Amino acid sequence: MKTIKDSVHDHIEVSEVAQDLLDTKPVQRLRHIRQLGTVDLVYPSANHTRFEHSLGVYHLADRALSHLGIEGRQAERVRAAALLHDVGHGPYSHNLEALIHRHTGDYHDDVDELLSRGEVAEILEAHDLDPERIAGLVAGEGRLGQLVSGELDVDRMDYLVRDAHHTGVPYGTIDHGRLVRELRFVDGELALAAGNVQTAEALLLARALMNPVVYNHPVARIGKAMLRRATERLLDGDLSGTELRRMDDHDLLVTLRNDERTSRDAERLGRRDLYKRAVWAELRDTPDELVDADHTTVREWEAEIAERAGVDAESVILDVPARPTMTESSTRVVVSGEIRPLGRQSTLVEALKTTQREQWRLGVYAPADDAERIGTVAVSVLGLDIEGTLVSDVRPGVHATLDEFSTE
Amino acid sequence: MKTIKDSVHDHIEVSEVAQDLLDTKPVQRLRHIRQLGTVDLVYPSANHTRFEHSLGVYHLADRALSHLGIEGRQAERVRAAALLHDVGHGPYSHNLEALIHRHTGDYHDDVDELLSRGEVAEILEAHDLDPERIAGLVAGEGRLGQLVSGELDVDRMDYLVRDAHHTGVPYGTIDHGRLVRELRFVDGELALAAGNVQTAEALLLARALMNPVVYNHPVARIGKAMLRRATERLLDGDLSGTELRRMDDHDLLVTLRNDERTSRDAERLGRRDLYKRAVWAELRDTPDELVDADHTTVREWEAEIAERAGVDAESVILDVPARPTMTESSTRVVVSGEIRPLGRQSTLVEALKTTQREQWRLGVYAPADDAERIGTVAVSVLGLDIEGTLVSDVRPGVHATLDEFSTE
Amino acid sequence: MKTIKDSVHDHIEVSEVAQDLLDTKPVQRLRHIRQLGTVDLVYPSANHTRFEHSLGVYHLADRALSHLGIEGRQAERVRAAALLHDVGHGPYSHNLEALIHRHTGDYHDDVDELLSRGEVAEILEAHDLDPERIAGLVAGEGRLGQLVSGELDVDRMDYLVRDAHHTGVPYGTIDHGRLVRELRFVDGELALAAGNVQTAEALLLARALMNPVVYNHPVARIGKAMLRRATERLLDGDLSGTELRRMDDHDLLVTLRNDERTSRDAERLGRRDLYKRAVWAELRDTPDELVDADHTTVREWEAEIAERAGVDAESVILDVPARPTMTESSTRVVVSGEIRPLGRQSTLVEALKTTQREQWRLGVYAPADDAERIGTVAVSVLGLDIEGTLVSDVRPGVHATLDEFSTE
Amino acid sequence: MKTIKDSVHDHIEVSEVAQDLLDTKPVQRLRHIRQLGTVDLVYPSANHTRFEHSLGVYHLADRALSHLGIEGRQAERVRAAALLHDVGHGPYSHNLEALIHRHTGDYHDDVDELLSRGEVAEILEAHDLDPERIAGLVAGEGRLGQLVSGELDVDRMDYLVRDAHHTGVPYGTIDHGRLVRELRFVDGELALAAGNVQTAEALLLARALMNPVVYNHPVARIGKAMLRRATERLLDGDLSGTELRRMDDHDLLVTLRNDERTSRDAERLGRRDLYKRAVWAELRDTPDELVDADHTTVREWEAEIAERAGVDAESVILDVPARPTMTESSTRVVVSGEIRPLGRQSTLVEALKTTQREQWRLGVYAPADDAERIGTVAVSVLGLDIEGTLVSDVRPGVHATLDEFSTE
Repeated sequence: MKTIKDSVHDHIEVSEVAQDLLDTKPVQRLRHIRQLGTVDLVYPSANHTRFEHSLGVYHLADRALSHLGIEGRQAERVRAAALLHDVGHGPYSHNLEALIHRHTGDYHDDVDELLSRGEVAEILEAHDLDPERIAGLVAGEGRLGQLVSGELDVDRMDYLVRDAHHTGVPYGTIDHGRLVRELRFVDGELALAAGNVQTAEALLLARALMNPVVYNHPVARIGKAMLRRATERLLDGDLSGTELRRMDDHDLLVTLRNDERTSRDAERLGRRDLYKRAVWAELRDTPDELVDADHTTVREWEAEIAERAGVDAESVILDVPARPTMTESSTRVVVSGEIRPLGRQSTLVEALKTTQREQWRLGVYAPADDAERIGTVAVSVLGLDIEGTLVSDVRPGVHATLDEFSTE
Repeated sequence: MKTIKDSVHDHIEVSEVAQDLLDTKPVQRLRHIRQLGTVDLVYPSANHTRFEHSLGVYHLADRALSHLGIEGRQAERVRAAALLHDVGHGPYSHNLEALIHRHTGDYHDDVDELLSRGEVAEILEAHDLDPERIAGLVAGEGRLGQLVSGELDVDRMDYLVRDAHHTGVPYGTIDHGRLVRELRFVDGELALAAGNVQTAEALLLARALMNPVVYNHPVARIGKAMLRRATERLLDGDLSGTELRRMDDHDLLVTLRNDERTSRDAERLGRRDLYKRAVWAELRDTPDELVDADHTTVREWEAEIAERAGVDAESVILDVPARPTMTESSTRVVVSGEIRPLGRQSTLVEALKTTQREQWRLGVYAPADDAERIGTVAVSVLGLDIEGTLVSDVRPGVHATLDEFSTE
Repeated sequence: MKTIKDSVHDHIEVSEVAQDLLDTKPVQRLRHIRQLGTVDLVYPSANHTRFEHSLGVYHLADRALSHLGIEGRQAERVRAAALLHDVGHGPYSHNLEALIHRHTGDYHDDVDELLSRGEVAEILEAHDLDPERIAGLVAGEGRLGQLVSGELDVDRMDYLVRDAHHTGVPYGTIDHGRLVRELRFVDGELALAAGNVQTAEALLLARALMNPVVYNHPVARIGKAMLRRATERLLDGDLSGTELRRMDDHDLLVTLRNDERTSRDAERLGRRDLYKRAVWAELRDTPDELVDADHTTVREWEAEIAERAGVDAESVILDVPARPTMTESSTRVVVSGEIRPLGRQSTLVEALKTTQREQWRLGVYAPADDAERIGTVAVSVLGLDIEGTLVSDVRPGVHATLDEFSTE
Repeated sequence: MKTIKDSVHDHIEVSEVAQDLLDTKPVQRLRHIRQLGTVDLVYPSANHTRFEHSLGVYHLADRALSHLGIEGRQAERVRAAALLHDVGHGPYSHNLEALIHRHTGDYHDDVDELLSRGEVAEILEAHDLDPERIAGLVAGEGRLGQLVSGELDVDRMDYLVRDAHHTGVPYGTIDHGRLVRELRFVDGELALAAGNVQTAEALLLARALMNPVVYNHPVARIGKAMLRRATERLLDGDLSGTELRRMDDHDLLVTLRNDERTSRDAERLGRRDLYKRAVWAELRDTPDELVDADHTTVREWEAEIAERAGVDAESVILDVPARPTMTESSTRVVVSGEIRPLGRQSTLVEALKTTQREQWRLGVYAPADDAERIGTVAVSVLGLDIEGTLVSDVRPGVHATLDEFSTE
């Protein structure tokens, strides 16, 4: 059996189907999409790719299937889905996901398309695997789909340990060996066997700790916002959403450098000359109209802030992340012989949800020199000072409340 | 500068004072006291000692002092206290701590005594360090004492990572490098600098996850209860509390093997032929009289259970752990420019306290063959079945609720 | 003190000078040059960059200086040189180094230029550091230059552990903590203190083991040869050597994709559709004329092979690596009170040199379908079959002798 | 499948047979025998036991068997042998091995005895496994015995990584995942598959580097010599060799403490108040009569040195280790389709043998105060100064040549 050496899981055994899939262009392309986008602006070692992550997910799926006693064609399908689960990703992965969707339609359609025609489909068919069923598994459909995409999926298990290994932040170091061993199917539902409430909590806590320190680190968010804004300018020009989605990180970076509308942004990102926070406000008790504002409204607010502050439109970025969710709270655990959702069993889950809401922040970003002025205007434009609730002790240009971890 | 190689912190630099202290008998004795007592019955690699832990605490104290800018004699004293903080430990460390106290008086008196006379005191004095002040630091007194024994002490930071390294359970893998860097003295209080609410939470969570899986794993608790009961029999005989306290693990084990009152227990422990749980009941809503029962009452209950079950007295062990506490909840963090206790700032702390209470369990242990019968009797003797609240779905001899991790 | 989190050395403390240097474009550019070029074709996790490596070298220099008791401006200079030692690297680092030199002149001139004007020079001067002296240190000049570039430099110490961490191959895991502690200056020479013959041997062995398994893995060599050949085609066109040198990995990759002369090569590299070995022959006893053939001669041979095999010129790549050297053999160690070169003290060094010569291989690479035919022709053209010595038991298209490690 | 958590191999799956064997007294006893004896006097974290090592060997045997495609009863036997391979060890493992043999006869007889009667035999038979065949496998007999005890056995693979993990010395960190995958049976011989010359070399190098730094560190050797000498005094008294062999570390330590003939030695060992080297001489070119001197002669020499130096007999310990061997040099590797012994294929093997001979040292140890005087006398008594060859630049009491690594 062919093996591939991985920095996280050591030797990964690769089946024949997997070898053939690995040799396709859509999978090889994942070598050129980094796992964590702009997080490397905070943690310079975070340069791992969707390709090695996909291998890791494949490996954990294989281990889980083996412990679950699932073999043959059924297992082959799940492994293929695990390996392929990220082929639909565009450049910079989640950083530009929403943007790409807005310009191309649904993500899973794209995966469907990638799986249903071209090289990947040919190989799947050559191995007698139905591309449509694989696409279903990637989308988390069916009993076995939960293993690929669900509350207890192997995707999550791989990325937490992998991101910990590559950032140096230890919080993601979960006991994945135990997790894949304790999975069970009970009444068609994937659940953790009895005696694992805490195993489930530990998984949840790992993500809860990695979130503000890695995934939503303010500096990574600013980098992402700048990248997104620049890429939008490309989309305002000749670039179509579909073209963008087919790019990898290199293509996008070089396009940003070479297009005159974005070369300044590319230069800034390339030198890590980032915008600063002009406003950093808790969103916990925010009126819905702000949080649910659509993309057009956000752009209008930005324009208004820029105008009133007397700066050009590109100098203001308003970053309103979606309401935080915690899908893991529906993780199923067997307690006293019955399946229960973790959220009902564990006191911690409710607390973690509250914490997540407390950490939820709106940001207005601007060049360092203009940040203070823009902050003052933004507070007024966004009605933050009038409500009195949002900015409590956030003075414009000073952003006191969120924990910040080691950053460059 | 002399260095010692450690499996956790790699090269540890050792000052001259430390070298001299390391060469004393009370410190060398710690080589023969394992860090985690009976936990090796669950995790066979957990054979690390109080000696290597003491070196680790010394090292982290040194790092913290350096980041705090504390030097000279003051730092020398803290480092000495860190190195010496465990010299008062008896055999099997915390496993027999309460028992030894009951038979000898207070723990810290003993440390005082060890530090104030004999070899250690001579060396301290030879280096112009006042043994009494060192003893004070070990007891957590004064501004700098907090570093040695307090909510943010380096003791805790070392044992979490060390126990994770040696058990293989990853949950204790904290970011100690960050913790020692972020300590500050604010108004004489040791606190974490601004931006570290989550650093503090992560430390708390690490201990909360290690607790049920390692420190209070049911099998480790049973081993500890058996060891404690056997040792009590030695104390009922010729052995004095003071003699016991001066033993190391080897002395105690061999004494247990050679004394006819305890050789059977030693044989059982030696073969890992452990008692089983006859009752395993939540203590959350327990009447105070049960939880606060003194040692004599517990022995009487055991005798009554044994009598009514028709077994000899040695076949019943009742294990009622003290009410759980969470000193870390008073960890101080700087938020918005002022010091706040973590418990007030963090939603998680309250949830963790609740979780801890939920995990709090009374155990009745007995030889496998008698466990079911003894369980039934114990429930009746202890009034568990009458209250109806404690044993909810705990049938005697079946112990469903606590998460159990990988065990032998 | 500001710190940056690194996946290898954990928290790295960064001085003010270093922070300012890190913010320059030439240093930030190193984020976009991967450390190991095409090695990721074998080890998919090997995506670490020259940027994180430069930080690591900076860190180890800082540690070494501290142990050597060197402080102040002198230390500041060495640290700056350590941080900047790779700023001259072109895209794909060592993969294209020789090619770039052939087209631009000497490497160190380029570093000199980068350091002596522009942003970096300004910052060095603003901190009262002489750019010329820094450039000298980077070139290994003077007593302290040995620390940056020499047999015992911190560059080597960082890359071995870092490459081990990111490839998953454990052989590079040296004891760098010990190495930086045991450095001494004896009569102006950097040496390892007494008792370290084996420390020096271990460093040498680590590199000797990493060489064939990582740095010169056949698949990485093929990828590198294909990349080099494609890049040459760009240089045959409009691209100048100086322009090439200023590119980063993204620029080069995208240029290769978009240029019609190279888009097929880029496609092949992008899909990991690599050439295979048509000949793989030991070079140990090779006549000098073959080994010392200049670039033009190599191209002529390739053309001749292609012509006689009836394939187009692009289908044949002849890869003749330079004679292996072992600079580490002159590592100085203190033995019996005097400095000795390791090569004189250690029996292993001579054996490692022999091993290195034995592993030295000429490769002829070609598309899979043509490999056998091209191999036969190449053996004849290169006179390999006439000599009888080179191809001993290497049949064309079958390449038996070199150890191959885990590969995709 | 039951799993046990190990600090080195993470989750180890344990078959039913293994579970039953683990529950026996002879296997549980291995919890109380440390893996590296007195090495903890140098590396304080080296407290791991033969029990966890046995589990590790069991695990690697299981992995190797699975890759070799060996299943059923045959595999069950090998796994049992792997788990049981160390049950014959006496207290302090290899430290007292020779001494115990001198007093009891052959080691393997003892294993035979342990396996052929009592609990272990009963369990083996209950599972239809023939104790005699298991004993044969432990002794390395037959085709599959090579896996348990031979040049490529899993024993070696486990102890190298385990000792590295627990000492903190990285040199033992081999790629065991690759080793167990590359094993093949060729003509009934266990060999490494083609392409693994270097895999084999890396294993050899790991042991070669661990030897002087860990296994034969001078301080560990002194501790061992003191322990051995003290234990001999017990054997001169009431203790029989058979009783000694049945002890574990605790029994021996406490016996040494309580016996008046040895309490001073126990006190010294307990406080790490060790003898120093009075002579430390290369044995490379030593006349056979010295190297091959039997135990009685060594004792006579010690007595003579003590007498002429005017100290009591206990103050002189002469330590003449056996001629070093390198069984790994006969490791079989497949090269060009045929099996070759590594020693013939690899240039490194001969060099490592030479290095080993160069590191081979005779020691005379004595209390610090008398070391210089005793050294001078010993040189004369042992004829070292007359020969002129042995002590080249070793002045008595000064011991310059061997590399010493980090020590307390």
